[in-house]
Amino acid sequence: MPNKHNFGAGPCILPQEVFEEAAQAVLSWGNTGLSILEISHRTPEFESVVAESVQLIKDLMQVPDGYEVIFVQGGASLQFGMLPMNLLNDNETAGYLDTGVWANKALKEAKLFGQVNVLASSKDANYSFIPKDFDIPSDLKYFHCTSNNTIYGTQLQSFPKSPVSMVCDMSSDILSREVNVADFDLIYAGAQKNIGPAGNTVVIVKSSILGKVTRKITSMLDYQIHIEGGSMYNTPPVFSIYVAMLNLRWLKKQGGVKEMERRNIEKANLLYSEIDRNSLFKGTCAVEDRSKMNICFVMNDANLEKEFLQMAVAAGCVGLKGHRSVGGFRASMYNALPLSSVQVLVDVMKQFEALKK
Amino acid sequence: MPNKHNFGAGPCILPQEVFEEAAQAVLSWGNTGLSILEISHRTPEFESVVAESVQLIKDLMQVPDGYEVIFVQGGASLQFGMLPMNLLNDNETAGYLDTGVWANKALKEAKLFGQVNVLASSKDANYSFIPKDFDIPSDLKYFHCTSNNTIYGTQLQSFPKSPVSMVCDMSSDILSREVNVADFDLIYAGAQKNIGPAGNTVVIVKSSILGKVTRKITSMLDYQIHIEGGSMYNTPPVFSIYVAMLNLRWLKKQGGVKEMERRNIEKANLLYSEIDRNSLFKGTCAVEDRSKMNICFVMNDANLEKEFLQMAVAAGCVGLKGHRSVGGFRASMYNALPLSSVQVLVDVMKQFEALKK
Repeated sequence: MPNKHNFGAGPCILPQEVFEEAAQAVLSWGNTGLSILEISHRTPEFESVVAESVQLIKDLMQVPDGYEVIFVQGGASLQFGMLPMNLLNDNETAGYLDTGVWANKALKEAKLFGQVNVLASSKDANYSFIPKDFDIPSDLKYFHCTSNNTIYGTQLQSFPKSPVSMVCDMSSDILSREVNVADFDLIYAGAQKNIGPAGNTVVIVKSSILGKVTRKITSMLDYQIHIEGGSMYNTPPVFSIYVAMLNLRWLKKQGGVKEMERRNIEKANLLYSEIDRNSLFKGTCAVEDRSKMNICFVMNDANLEKEFLQMAVAAGCVGLKGHRSVGGFRASMYNALPLSSVQVLVDVMKQFEALKK
Repeated sequence: MPNKHNFGAGPCILPQEVFEEAAQAVLSWGNTGLSILEISHRTPEFESVVAESVQLIKDLMQVPDGYEVIFVQGGASLQFGMLPMNLLNDNETAGYLDTGVWANKALKEAKLFGQVNVLASSKDANYSFIPKDFDIPSDLKYFHCTSNNTIYGTQLQSFPKSPVSMVCDMSSDILSREVNVADFDLIYAGAQKNIGPAGNTVVIVKSSILGKVTRKITSMLDYQIHIEGGSMYNTPPVFSIYVAMLNLRWLKKQGGVKEMERRNIEKANLLYSEIDRNSLFKGTCAVEDRSKMNICFVMNDANLEKEFLQMAVAAGCVGLKGHRSVGGFRASMYNALPLSSVQVLVDVMKQFEALKK
């Protein structure tokens, strides 16, 4: 069996040393004499894990004062509802940028709790580009965008200047590039790309925006309750947070977000160059909106796709099959994916081209 | 360092062989060549994990036709709100049995969504007994009870005959004893006691009770959405479900719930006998309501408690300190705790008595 190169869209590759340390902790964690899976969340040892994980996110993303970092469950999908529940009164309006299936789900959930103004949408073009020609009205409660569209391989290269609270779903590109947290009032991200294993969700929120809606909120969906409980209002997903900590430590040791961004640009350039050069392949989205996390491409002759995929699989590449709504291939290249894995894929593309000449 | 005997209230002990298999899967899972932590939930391999876990719960608990088993996130605490959101209209009334802090939190959350009738409460007696003198009015939408009260060490030895839908939080004793699922319309349980690691929640629901409220429910809190999505409407907590499967397999191999119940009775008898025999100790709750999962006890001379705890810790017993609202000690004895661990604790109690004579 060849080494695997995991191009999966998520849950996705994490660093090998994280797997090794996590496996050891499942057998016996530190000096506790217990498995991390049987540790009470109320032990000082685990309280340290939460505190360190929060601090690592604050350090890595340079989170300014006045913001809280919390861990909750339910993924970005729960945030789609939790967000408007906490920020939007029935008679208030939020603006949404509709750039993909997840952005669209987010705005649909917001409609349950208030008014939604879809400021721009590329839905009619199968979300193959990021709309840029829109204004953000200053009477909105907040503006919501999705920084990276996992399914379509598009990414906001920069964020609009918003006259109102900007809220962002960064599930698939958080920690992959430098962002100015102060530009946002709330950032959320399902953990299972660049943070850690599935089952954990990170929310970074400016405290001053909370407590302004009139509706009653069930405790578990109230950001304030999780802030007051230090992410331990109830039993948190212990192992998911622990592995996130290991991964964040790794990230810091590698040089932080700045270094990740450099590597991600290098990896993306390598693959996009080959897609553009190779006569058999083409990208699926607007060039200026290309994502550095998820690279979607198809073959000019769709009949060859099955054979190419087999060759890639034989070379150890997994998770390459494109999402059904785009087809072809999707190479997800999160932080932990090494350049050498991208090189393997590029080599297969070159070999396949030679084979078909 | 002596072997550890984990009496923690949860997250709690799981079988050693589960830790070993889980650790191996973190390094490399089955024939995938990947870590379980980097596996997509959309792979056939992981779809099998979900299917097998559901089937194991159905088999082990003899779940009748017409019921669905789903995995969600957020623990019992999220269920406290999700339950009335799905079952109780604003003008309808649910009955709650108030037997502890968690039961009390459940009824408080229900008040956000409808009317609550507290049928009986032992709150004024610090929840030291289970109220039995109450009727369940037949015009209630549902009746809610908590089968085992982790903090106070009380347990419903049998369930009332309910003229309306009976709903039960079984977080801390699910799979520890035989129950007749057909007596309930909905059962929920945070995983982190007898099911698996934290981060997963099991809901067993009679399909016919759903779809009868008029309010709009955010997708992630709609039971029907999770049923239709086969517990994968969004990315599930992959590892928590995987380890739950390993634990459920172990449970089945040991002889199932019937055998667990036999062992749990044996363990509880051993410790309660010593508490009642030993002149230094006494139980904290009504004898007829004693839990077989969480055994709460104090010392007649509270000044000796610190010294006893040190001696127990030296013998490898961890997680014994009682909850602050009861004090003293709490020995949680979930399915995976062996009789030999209980014997170690009993031996320490005997030794301590001899020392103080």
